[in-house]
Amino acid sequence: MPKDVIKIGLLGCGQVGSGTVAALQANAGAITQAVGARLEICRICVRNLAKPRPPEVDRSLLTVNPDEVLNDPEIDLVAELIGGVEPARRFILQALDNGKHIVTANKELIAKAGHELLVVAGERRLDFSFEGSVAGGIPIIRSLKVSLAANRIEQIIGIVNGTTNYILTRMAADGLAFAPALAEAQARGYAEADPSDDVDGRDAAYKLAILASIGFQSRVDLDSVYCEGIRRISDRDIRYARELGYVIKLLAIAKQVDGALELRVHPAMLPVSHPLAAVSDVFNAIFVRGNAVGDAMFYGRGAGSLPTGSSVVADLMETARNIRFGATGRISCTCFENRPPLSMEEVQTKYYVRMTTADRPGVLAATAGVFGDHGVSIESMVQKAGAGTEAEIVWITHGTHEGDMRQALAKIERLPVVREIGNWIRVEE
Amino acid sequence: MPKDVIKIGLLGCGQVGSGTVAALQANAGAITQAVGARLEICRICVRNLAKPRPPEVDRSLLTVNPDEVLNDPEIDLVAELIGGVEPARRFILQALDNGKHIVTANKELIAKAGHELLVVAGERRLDFSFEGSVAGGIPIIRSLKVSLAANRIEQIIGIVNGTTNYILTRMAADGLAFAPALAEAQARGYAEADPSDDVDGRDAAYKLAILASIGFQSRVDLDSVYCEGIRRISDRDIRYARELGYVIKLLAIAKQVDGALELRVHPAMLPVSHPLAAVSDVFNAIFVRGNAVGDAMFYGRGAGSLPTGSSVVADLMETARNIRFGATGRISCTCFENRPPLSMEEVQTKYYVRMTTADRPGVLAATAGVFGDHGVSIESMVQKAGAGTEAEIVWITHGTHEGDMRQALAKIERLPVVREIGNWIRVEE
Repeated sequence: MPKDVIKIGLLGCGQVGSGTVAALQANAGAITQAVGARLEICRICVRNLAKPRPPEVDRSLLTVNPDEVLNDPEIDLVAELIGGVEPARRFILQALDNGKHIVTANKELIAKAGHELLVVAGERRLDFSFEGSVAGGIPIIRSLKVSLAANRIEQIIGIVNGTTNYILTRMAADGLAFAPALAEAQARGYAEADPSDDVDGRDAAYKLAILASIGFQSRVDLDSVYCEGIRRISDRDIRYARELGYVIKLLAIAKQVDGALELRVHPAMLPVSHPLAAVSDVFNAIFVRGNAVGDAMFYGRGAGSLPTGSSVVADLMETARNIRFGATGRISCTCFENRPPLSMEEVQTKYYVRMTTADRPGVLAATAGVFGDHGVSIESMVQKAGAGTEAEIVWITHGTHEGDMRQALAKIERLPVVREIGNWIRVEE
Repeated sequence: MPKDVIKIGLLGCGQVGSGTVAALQANAGAITQAVGARLEICRICVRNLAKPRPPEVDRSLLTVNPDEVLNDPEIDLVAELIGGVEPARRFILQALDNGKHIVTANKELIAKAGHELLVVAGERRLDFSFEGSVAGGIPIIRSLKVSLAANRIEQIIGIVNGTTNYILTRMAADGLAFAPALAEAQARGYAEADPSDDVDGRDAAYKLAILASIGFQSRVDLDSVYCEGIRRISDRDIRYARELGYVIKLLAIAKQVDGALELRVHPAMLPVSHPLAAVSDVFNAIFVRGNAVGDAMFYGRGAGSLPTGSSVVADLMETARNIRFGATGRISCTCFENRPPLSMEEVQTKYYVRMTTADRPGVLAATAGVFGDHGVSIESMVQKAGAGTEAEIVWITHGTHEGDMRQALAKIERLPVVREIGNWIRVEE
């Protein structure tokens, strides 16, 4: 006789935790019908009992003792919504040890310790799901693991950080510089007081490591993800990009190139016709190219209490169904391959280079000569209006190895006619 | 001991059938690893043995006798890829009767007889899946059924017909009229010799009926879907739409309004800022609004051999996993509700109205008076350059019941100063 109540313990009741409680309550009837059992949250572990909670949270369920969740034999399923690696990792291992299925929305934990936890869960035929860990409400994990499983994934390109996308959108729309756009994002609650995890790309790198490990079925070490943030993007670059038919986005890019994995997070120019180019404000989207499906894209809210709660509850429902049918552990770790990472020097892409030079004959020839010496071929060059005796030149290269490009730029920077390399930005097609 | 080979019989080997075979072969190793068993196509029923087939199709598997698929006790799983209601329906019932799980990509069948088939499959705890029936490679069915299951879905708006989206894209990009754009679509193989199923919206209506029944968990009768095609859209409407900040798309719209379902397929103006507005050429996309996830969108190739094959193989893999784990029938028919359809008269939307009138004082007042009498309030009015003694006027209304709008237009058409109502088009926000 299958269970008609599935008992859930929550670890953490912040943003995502209370969104999970709220989504479960708002749609309780339909959820029970779809699962064939009622999902009941019977214990919630928090750090601070006194902290105010939204009205949906039943305060009588709160405890500060994690063992009341982790060791309660009544609890079938633990949702870890604390964030960070420890103590989340230790709690999950204890829960798995006690035979509990796991749902988590913890990107840092999955990026750093996902493989270890998935292997333990797989050995015990316990479900372990983490849809909420990447791109909030967008169901990209299940889409990659199940719906696109018939594909060899060739590339994944994501806008997976809402904070930076909001900042770049504001810079593009109103010509703001980075600092005031960041201040606006902070005022609206889209960026934290210390915004560095978002702005420097680390948050996106966690998500890329997760997406790539699933899409390419290969364990991805976070250290092999190149990571560069958006601090050096100026309003001028954004304006020039637009004139050239591009937008600038913080992209999380994973490609499979001859069996190796290219893994990089950095700002990049994207043609305005690319499906990701129209993704603005705090929205996220993940573009996937597979050898059967072709191009596909998944768009939605990448963060927030209810959107992420929507993904957590979907995982809880799927796990509950599996518990009822005795079918847990059907999909465990999918890292069957061991694909080496490609170093950034070997990555091939196009580049935008903006430089200030002396305004006199011979400058172009000298610069173009250095590019040529390093095998960097030029797609276009535009001379912008300079100030006084200076000229501003914008180059777009053809596809070039990053190693060659860096060498060329180092040499160009030392040319007597070159005042400054204002910026250089990778260009995706 | 779980099976290590899952045997599959195919009904039909046209576009989708050969895409299924090709996707299975191209990614065989990864598929076997992910499922934990090999998927083997062991019989393919076709109508014509002599017809040329792509090289992936092993001709020794072909038969013209469906019973060799439907009654073979070795076959675990039947993929119906014939299309149309009969004999597909009869074949599937026979296969279910013989205990076989079903995967299909047949939109017409699911729209017209899906409920019946799902109930039979559910009673026997057999898997019945149909991801490929809507929007080809886009995993929208599983996303609605599983990933967004924690949501009360408020609206689904889809561009689900590639042919009409290609035609409208060409009209917008190059100012083509409908007829030459259709001819171009036919020349490129995007439209059939008889294009009426696509152009008149029936194909989109099938898909909307399927999406709505899943999203709103309520059986949707195809007859309750209002259906209007794109034949009357002129290049002039497209140009005026652009000037007003809109694009024209054939939309499949399903909304839940006070427990009733609004179900309609028709061309509509969409603000250029809407995520669906940038979906062009043969691409499809489905925009979903849920009470927890907020706005989400799923984008990709809506047709074609390999994209649809990708969805069919994903269903085969999921079913195979369920067979191995004895977990079939976990998700059966989800139509728990019985929500009544809303009549088109009761639908509320904004409207664009283009009319030719006499170019003399009093015309505006007379027309505006009729709108006012029927409670139609006007958001904006633009007078376009007319020819000779005629003026062309374009109105955008506020939200209005369609019944009132139709009455107002019938009266306006009879005003002596009005020469013609050139067109009227619904406007979505």
